[in-house]
Amino acid sequence: MNAELIAVGTEILLGQIVNTDAQVIAQGLSELGINVYYQTVVGDNPERLERAIIEAKNRADIIITTGGLGPTLDDLTKETLAKVFNKSLKLDEESLDEIKIFFDKLGKQMTPNNQKQAWLPEGCTVFKNEWGTAPGCGFESDSKYVIMLPGPPRECEPMFKKYAVPFLYPLAGGCIKSHNVRMFGIGESAMETKLHDLMQSMQNPTIAPYAKTSECFVRITAKAETEDEAEKMLQPVVEKVKQIIGDDVYGVDVDSLEQVAGRLLIKNNMTLSVAESCTGGLLSKRITDLAGASDYYMGGVCSYSNEVKMKVLGVKTETLEKYGAVSSQTAEEMAKGVAERLGTDVGVGITGIAGPGGGTIDKPVGLVYISVWINGKCITKKTNNTHGRDRVRNYAASVALDIIRRELE
Amino acid sequence: MNAELIAVGTEILLGQIVNTDAQVIAQGLSELGINVYYQTVVGDNPERLERAIIEAKNRADIIITTGGLGPTLDDLTKETLAKVFNKSLKLDEESLDEIKIFFDKLGKQMTPNNQKQAWLPEGCTVFKNEWGTAPGCGFESDSKYVIMLPGPPRECEPMFKKYAVPFLYPLAGGCIKSHNVRMFGIGESAMETKLHDLMQSMQNPTIAPYAKTSECFVRITAKAETEDEAEKMLQPVVEKVKQIIGDDVYGVDVDSLEQVAGRLLIKNNMTLSVAESCTGGLLSKRITDLAGASDYYMGGVCSYSNEVKMKVLGVKTETLEKYGAVSSQTAEEMAKGVAERLGTDVGVGITGIAGPGGGTIDKPVGLVYISVWINGKCITKKTNNTHGRDRVRNYAASVALDIIRRELE
Repeated sequence: MNAELIAVGTEILLGQIVNTDAQVIAQGLSELGINVYYQTVVGDNPERLERAIIEAKNRADIIITTGGLGPTLDDLTKETLAKVFNKSLKLDEESLDEIKIFFDKLGKQMTPNNQKQAWLPEGCTVFKNEWGTAPGCGFESDSKYVIMLPGPPRECEPMFKKYAVPFLYPLAGGCIKSHNVRMFGIGESAMETKLHDLMQSMQNPTIAPYAKTSECFVRITAKAETEDEAEKMLQPVVEKVKQIIGDDVYGVDVDSLEQVAGRLLIKNNMTLSVAESCTGGLLSKRITDLAGASDYYMGGVCSYSNEVKMKVLGVKTETLEKYGAVSSQTAEEMAKGVAERLGTDVGVGITGIAGPGGGTIDKPVGLVYISVWINGKCITKKTNNTHGRDRVRNYAASVALDIIRRELE
Repeated sequence: MNAELIAVGTEILLGQIVNTDAQVIAQGLSELGINVYYQTVVGDNPERLERAIIEAKNRADIIITTGGLGPTLDDLTKETLAKVFNKSLKLDEESLDEIKIFFDKLGKQMTPNNQKQAWLPEGCTVFKNEWGTAPGCGFESDSKYVIMLPGPPRECEPMFKKYAVPFLYPLAGGCIKSHNVRMFGIGESAMETKLHDLMQSMQNPTIAPYAKTSECFVRITAKAETEDEAEKMLQPVVEKVKQIIGDDVYGVDVDSLEQVAGRLLIKNNMTLSVAESCTGGLLSKRITDLAGASDYYMGGVCSYSNEVKMKVLGVKTETLEKYGAVSSQTAEEMAKGVAERLGTDVGVGITGIAGPGGGTIDKPVGLVYISVWINGKCITKKTNNTHGRDRVRNYAASVALDIIRRELE
């Protein structure tokens, strides 16, 4: 089975938005074991859309479209697909009711053009849109499978996962389940090298490596008759990956280092504060990206100037004079200082040179000291990342969270 | 003239990366007045790539490929394009030297497979790659124009702008110049309504509206024989847009509110500190995203708990008891408190409910008070954004920067 994705939308052709729907769907299909050979983007133009659909029908088993399901006249995906597959559109009363309810909830009047969204190809499976107004759908015709999803990512992604994936299960032959094993402290190529033999030896489950800013992960996916069977196949592989990678694995099916560190702090009934120089509030921001961080996070100090390091955090003048602001000694006094002043169990201190300016031969751009005051001692790491300001800062913040994670685990 | 983009890369088909190159190129072509009717993504497979190229050759005047120029065996873009256009590949000595120099700089030995990257279609215009190893190129053949760019966005984007755009100028008929007018405090639809008549009335320059998180902008683009002429055409339109939108325009060709606020602080010889509750360090992070922020930014306090608000910022117990942590009174004491304690001219205080939890009927999720202590007074705004935690926080941080901007302008 192979699928082709067609995104319908002039705003993508004009570069006003990025086609992120394609990534979400492509990842999902990859996990289902369905190959994607082509992705196409075409504007809201019926002739060119028809041409793209005919081409896709010739070369793929499954066509998945995104966009063009809305209420306006230039939304023509359903009409064009119906034409190519010789289907008529029928008013789906249930979908119409849903659209009316959606407008009621917003306290707005439904304009007549919104009715258009409830007209769907005869005999299709309707995909309810709980995140917007335009329903999606799926049908089989001429031995081809067609799926239509709305374009806005906040509608497309959940609808793909909730409705399109189950619609595709029978085509993929059974049930699919995945686990993500997340790592920090190991690079992508080192991870791939370590897992190479295992990845090569596996057909089902499969192991797919991914990298994102300063960390990487693998997604392990099993295909089976039932979810239980898939889970049984997954568990030994998850354990094997954890065993091979070791303590660089920080979690399975978790969202982020900040989430894992936060959970460990709660579990240990400990509170946290941070003192940041070069990261300038980024670590604090990442911690508080999570709702509920107030359970363990008391606050932080961004000590961008030396005065603030001394006045607010109590870093000693002699330390700054003798070792400089960018030193392990300053990082440690910041960590201890912020914990003492804000009255928390754990304190973080980060000081370094994020660049692009400010580097010297002794203290080059990318040099960062990260210290964590925890359980009565300072654990301090030095990093040297040369991948630009953003990555220097993000990496340093991650190292701080990782030190907490390793200490409390 | 119309163009088709072909991205070559199995990693896009697998959903491992998003095709951001397409957006950059599509935007650039849109500004050049070159239409894009189709974008295609195809894997590193010579037959399917050839099919996509032939299809593009049939329906477009210009073909722009990204990816598949690297040193490995599955990098086949050049070879396949050369085949379709009946061209031979020749070793370009200058490119080979550049690749050798690139490896020298990294202190690494060039492996022989890297030579492959210096083989280019005969008679092409070579696009030097100053950001990586694989050069790009452009050529004309069979009355079609072909451009090849490397896939990694950090190489593709600058090469498109530096080499591909000038290569395309003659096809677009002259010189293209743009200015971005950025706004805060006005929504996208209000902006479009205000500018509707002007946008409709213009052919050259054109005015294109864009929206990004909590702000919007228009790009005004003129096409002329020379850059000077284009600039002369642009200036009155920029002025007209500024006049219609009024003081919601915060800058022309600037990067962000934080940049504009920073420049104004430097100009006024003023220093800044911030106290953040619900934004949790996000404002501080955004300010310090900019290298050189230490010229005016002294630091900040994230007062996530009430204890920190009182102990570190000096917010009065009575204020918290009488009005609550989320109140204009607390925001003002935070703003004044942080300025006093960190010894800065300007202080920001932000307190609110970012959600999703923690809201009440009186103080719902999304309610945020933003206060700026500046020139001996507090300017305080209340916002009610209901678009989720991220946007509540980002909007509040932007409001703070916008208050500073409006006060100092």
